[in-house]
Amino acid sequence: MSGNTFGTLFCVSSFGESHGPAYGGVVDGCPPGLELKNEDIQKELDRRKPGSSRHVTQRRESDAVEILSGVYQGRTTGTAIGFLIRNEDQRPKGYAAIAEKFRPGHADYTYWQKYGVRDARGGGRASARETVVRVAAGAIAKKWLKERYGVVVRGYLAQVGSIRIPFKTWGAVDANPFFSPNEELVKKLETFMDQLRESGDSCGARVNVVAEGVPVGWGEPVYGRLDADIAGAMMSINAVKGVEIGAGFESITQKGSEHGDEMTPQGFLSNHNGGVLGGISTGQDVTVSLALKPTSSIRLPRRTINTRGEATSVETTGRHDPCVGIRATPIAEAMLACVLADHALRHRAQCGDVTPPTKVGHGSKHR
Amino acid sequence: MSGNTFGTLFCVSSFGESHGPAYGGVVDGCPPGLELKNEDIQKELDRRKPGSSRHVTQRRESDAVEILSGVYQGRTTGTAIGFLIRNEDQRPKGYAAIAEKFRPGHADYTYWQKYGVRDARGGGRASARETVVRVAAGAIAKKWLKERYGVVVRGYLAQVGSIRIPFKTWGAVDANPFFSPNEELVKKLETFMDQLRESGDSCGARVNVVAEGVPVGWGEPVYGRLDADIAGAMMSINAVKGVEIGAGFESITQKGSEHGDEMTPQGFLSNHNGGVLGGISTGQDVTVSLALKPTSSIRLPRRTINTRGEATSVETTGRHDPCVGIRATPIAEAMLACVLADHALRHRAQCGDVTPPTKVGHGSKHR
Amino acid sequence: MSGNTFGTLFCVSSFGESHGPAYGGVVDGCPPGLELKNEDIQKELDRRKPGSSRHVTQRRESDAVEILSGVYQGRTTGTAIGFLIRNEDQRPKGYAAIAEKFRPGHADYTYWQKYGVRDARGGGRASARETVVRVAAGAIAKKWLKERYGVVVRGYLAQVGSIRIPFKTWGAVDANPFFSPNEELVKKLETFMDQLRESGDSCGARVNVVAEGVPVGWGEPVYGRLDADIAGAMMSINAVKGVEIGAGFESITQKGSEHGDEMTPQGFLSNHNGGVLGGISTGQDVTVSLALKPTSSIRLPRRTINTRGEATSVETTGRHDPCVGIRATPIAEAMLACVLADHALRHRAQCGDVTPPTKVGHGSKHR
Amino acid sequence: MSGNTFGTLFCVSSFGESHGPAYGGVVDGCPPGLELKNEDIQKELDRRKPGSSRHVTQRRESDAVEILSGVYQGRTTGTAIGFLIRNEDQRPKGYAAIAEKFRPGHADYTYWQKYGVRDARGGGRASARETVVRVAAGAIAKKWLKERYGVVVRGYLAQVGSIRIPFKTWGAVDANPFFSPNEELVKKLETFMDQLRESGDSCGARVNVVAEGVPVGWGEPVYGRLDADIAGAMMSINAVKGVEIGAGFESITQKGSEHGDEMTPQGFLSNHNGGVLGGISTGQDVTVSLALKPTSSIRLPRRTINTRGEATSVETTGRHDPCVGIRATPIAEAMLACVLADHALRHRAQCGDVTPPTKVGHGSKHR
Repeated sequence: MSGNTFGTLFCVSSFGESHGPAYGGVVDGCPPGLELKNEDIQKELDRRKPGSSRHVTQRRESDAVEILSGVYQGRTTGTAIGFLIRNEDQRPKGYAAIAEKFRPGHADYTYWQKYGVRDARGGGRASARETVVRVAAGAIAKKWLKERYGVVVRGYLAQVGSIRIPFKTWGAVDANPFFSPNEELVKKLETFMDQLRESGDSCGARVNVVAEGVPVGWGEPVYGRLDADIAGAMMSINAVKGVEIGAGFESITQKGSEHGDEMTPQGFLSNHNGGVLGGISTGQDVTVSLALKPTSSIRLPRRTINTRGEATSVETTGRHDPCVGIRATPIAEAMLACVLADHALRHRAQCGDVTPPTKVGHGSKHR
Repeated sequence: MSGNTFGTLFCVSSFGESHGPAYGGVVDGCPPGLELKNEDIQKELDRRKPGSSRHVTQRRESDAVEILSGVYQGRTTGTAIGFLIRNEDQRPKGYAAIAEKFRPGHADYTYWQKYGVRDARGGGRASARETVVRVAAGAIAKKWLKERYGVVVRGYLAQVGSIRIPFKTWGAVDANPFFSPNEELVKKLETFMDQLRESGDSCGARVNVVAEGVPVGWGEPVYGRLDADIAGAMMSINAVKGVEIGAGFESITQKGSEHGDEMTPQGFLSNHNGGVLGGISTGQDVTVSLALKPTSSIRLPRRTINTRGEATSVETTGRHDPCVGIRATPIAEAMLACVLADHALRHRAQCGDVTPPTKVGHGSKHR
Repeated sequence: MSGNTFGTLFCVSSFGESHGPAYGGVVDGCPPGLELKNEDIQKELDRRKPGSSRHVTQRRESDAVEILSGVYQGRTTGTAIGFLIRNEDQRPKGYAAIAEKFRPGHADYTYWQKYGVRDARGGGRASARETVVRVAAGAIAKKWLKERYGVVVRGYLAQVGSIRIPFKTWGAVDANPFFSPNEELVKKLETFMDQLRESGDSCGARVNVVAEGVPVGWGEPVYGRLDADIAGAMMSINAVKGVEIGAGFESITQKGSEHGDEMTPQGFLSNHNGGVLGGISTGQDVTVSLALKPTSSIRLPRRTINTRGEATSVETTGRHDPCVGIRATPIAEAMLACVLADHALRHRAQCGDVTPPTKVGHGSKHR
Repeated sequence: MSGNTFGTLFCVSSFGESHGPAYGGVVDGCPPGLELKNEDIQKELDRRKPGSSRHVTQRRESDAVEILSGVYQGRTTGTAIGFLIRNEDQRPKGYAAIAEKFRPGHADYTYWQKYGVRDARGGGRASARETVVRVAAGAIAKKWLKERYGVVVRGYLAQVGSIRIPFKTWGAVDANPFFSPNEELVKKLETFMDQLRESGDSCGARVNVVAEGVPVGWGEPVYGRLDADIAGAMMSINAVKGVEIGAGFESITQKGSEHGDEMTPQGFLSNHNGGVLGGISTGQDVTVSLALKPTSSIRLPRRTINTRGEATSVETTGRHDPCVGIRATPIAEAMLACVLADHALRHRAQCGDVTPPTKVGHGSKHR
């Protein structure tokens, strides 16, 4: 299948451009009988919506979703779920000035060279606004995972620039514009973001995502591993440059006697592996961490070339997130949910007759 | 497709277990006309072969490959290339002692719970010995990429435990048992590995892989991005817990004015993006970095449970790499080569009629 | 991928129900640079439109298509092409009477049993109205095939009930409401259809489709054969019960000396194989023939059961085609075009460097 | 995925050439816990084996299969099942005479033009001998379908040239070299085949395949329909030119009041639809019929061209089936079994939680 669809059984297809008439998607393979209404998707879209604080892009979009198929009398029918999100605040003219220049860090140059044509209106297909489709699809996956398996997928902002945000409580995450799990740091983040915005520059971020309640057994070794599919899905999010599962890059300096999670009849004693061993879920929390690069659209002047290959410079004014990582939390959650839903179905397909033979506890804090 | 095949057009299917009769694979979609003989594959297999130094597992395998199809009169025919690698040094009996225990950090528990059955002989399908198939397939991909596009894929060991190995020269890499690009550190690595082996413990590692000469334009946004497929392929390698493209996790603390690679008519001025923008190759070097966890099989006693769910402990004797990362370099190269070959074909399919419109230099050191 | 997407590189995803708000689709993988506007799709949709004569369903739909993405300044960009066709003449209430009964020959029973839920409004997802999406996608494939390769895909009605319609001229096909290639038979067809409609019954039909100008070499043996993919695509059309390539079922009684198409430097001397040998196109016309079953919705009373498993009977009034085969011609053309476009891309991917070595003529009447 | 793999969840990959060292395959996605030994596969391979009567090719092959992976202690483990069938009776030299000519009806010309290279030894990859892989994979599918769902897949020869073979009893099928379900016609078939062989010509055939016991609900509308996947799989078999489901081409002349299968609480009253409605199994027998073209390799001289495009003629001596349809019965069974196993898994994945709501009888003779 081509590049705008992903998933083996829980499949998401996406279309749309930043300043075209609409974004839309198709979720195919969703089990029948799931209660689903526009609001179930809307509430997730609202979490990533632009314009919700001064720290993110001021583009005004209601991001109102319309389910067009696959739901009958309030429940999924098992057929393809089509949905549409109209663009409202298009300003294609604002992009005339940069239509002939390649903005550093952007996909302008690569789209142009690959396709020989480029939709220069706000990045066209390469715009991070495409993530509305991911969040919409993820809302469906999340709901099904929760109702069918009790799986809860959630994330938080773990670092902005050099400010680390230690996890404190899930309750805080949706109570501030940063998805910070730590209320105490919100003030500091605000100050930092205000300075950043004034300086005309941007910064990177780290987002952590966790899936709790994942049963043991999801994942298809050796290439269709759960962690492999998660890594691929995460790296497909705009601006992501790194993905870790469990201990991630800290594994390099760990000893085997430290990293390998010991087991007791009550469960695992640690979770360095991030809930995946041999590509299959262990029953512990699945823990993922992402690095997002700083926003490429900045006000500071940058050297570049134009479509004729001549040297020039570019300054990107307009409405941009000074830290794309801030709005990435719901997106990362969505991608994790879609991968998990896909593997839940794949596992049920092949191993639907297997009763996991060994009972161990999964209730410890080191799930 | 199921979990033991990967790729959209350049497809690799794999089978085999650590102590079964053989490993084998099928490479489907390789272009016709490529000169290919057993030795082309063998030389790559020899690079990852066990028993080649005292720092890796002492299992003795010749890893001799036999091409069974898809080659006629020394050239690929465009049909499926089947190949076989017989196991020679099977010692399934050595595993009786641990057949009923789940080794921490291993896939024993997850396979058992997922499938209700487990091939306990050396990890069965979960053994890192499966990577012979990846390396064999990668040898074909590498050869085609080099001859058709001049793409060179190579890697090196960048860190072992806390010993960082700064890149010095490609020439050193195959001249020492560590794939170290720096001869000066070899002595230090040997001492470290000897101590580690004596202590009965293991350690993690970092491997860097680079593809030079990749043309601009490979990759299929938005889900089939080149970097997304690379991340998925890398995370599917045994023991990998983290993947970075370009600046990776350092992007978090970078400013946009630092990270975004400026362009001139002579080419890019830096390569923080690792040769991929918007999921499409830029023409610069594609740079990837992996974190490998410490070997799970260690001599030190570890708490665990048995198949009846009872508490017990396990010590893994036998023939194991004290640092799986050491032999991972050729494997990572192979996976990168397979992903690139796949995307070369995918790009040619859709954009075979496009002439990249803008000429820029790609010859600077910041490719 | 799940059941509502098809194609490997030229991929079509479809959603929508007969009496939901809209049908829509995504065409992904289309090469960039193709001129495309709503009208290119509209003209094909108009060919299959309901209500265009008294011999087909009287449902009134303008079937107006809206391209939502993937086209910029009149040309495809290489990104996903999303499109929408709103339903206008929904009458969901008309179906209340049959919501609890399973109409013989329909998918009512199977959807109900498979999914545990059924959209009873006009067959829901099982409605032949879904073919608007196929025709829209096929319009894009047709246009690209014609402009890039000179391939022309067209079809005609070859039989209605027991009335055989010998091919006479392509010019006639779009000049009568039956897609009959033979003007002389139109009167006879009209009389037959009037009688059929009056009788409250329905009949089957045969549709032939031909692709001219297909280059030698498309198709991927052994499972991804061109003819295999054509057969699958045709059998996926509502009401199709049989597919033939070339001589089809007549091959059974042919001798090898008759069937095997002889070759001369000027080309083949016959085309019993239908333009495909070993799953690969020969350069001759690709010829396909379909059997379509009689419309299942008829006014005559039929024995059936209801959703509680009780015996009952059903008469289907409302707006139905008495011969679904009549409007099948543009649909079959669309499916053939999509499969060919997919294989054109797949061939170019793998064999883009091959120059077909043997020049033979393909201009004879036995192409 | 590329052309030598098929299936979404129950996946079969194939490699090998007629006169190469071996054929082999990988079955991926098979559920764990199935008892499987070489003999389970061998008995099916023996049914299609060459040299078993004077009416088929006299090539001598034991077709001995070796399972190389995926089975542990006599049961499938859920991992990839690799298997190998060595070629024994290779006579590549016998093909030197025709290496430069394109045999009419064969894939010689199309492979040569597609790939620019051709393995001329007995048709290379295009040889019908590739079907050993299908039969081996089908043996696994058949066994699982029978044990898990009670599904029985079997077929018979229904016509040879103009001799129709009315179904009499399943018991006869494996008791004669023709897979004839009718003992009385065996003598006549022998005489016909002897005459055909003497004449140096060949003939076509019809094979019917039936799957009994298929539960209601398998199949994924609208493109992944059960009948669509069956049609594709059947048309991928060498020499097949037509496929019918249920009434097939007879549907053309049927009335809706005749074709549409009425229902009663005891079950369906007929099975014109062949066990599939709307692409989903009905619970009735799935009935499929195939047309196979006459063998292309005949002793009679035929006009053709050589690789330089010059006119010449060719007579094919050597060891060939005068009617390829005769040995096609086990192959068609295998393909049907593989498609059904795939859809069983796909259905379980999406609809594993659905209880089919309406109980009807499926025990009538019109299943």
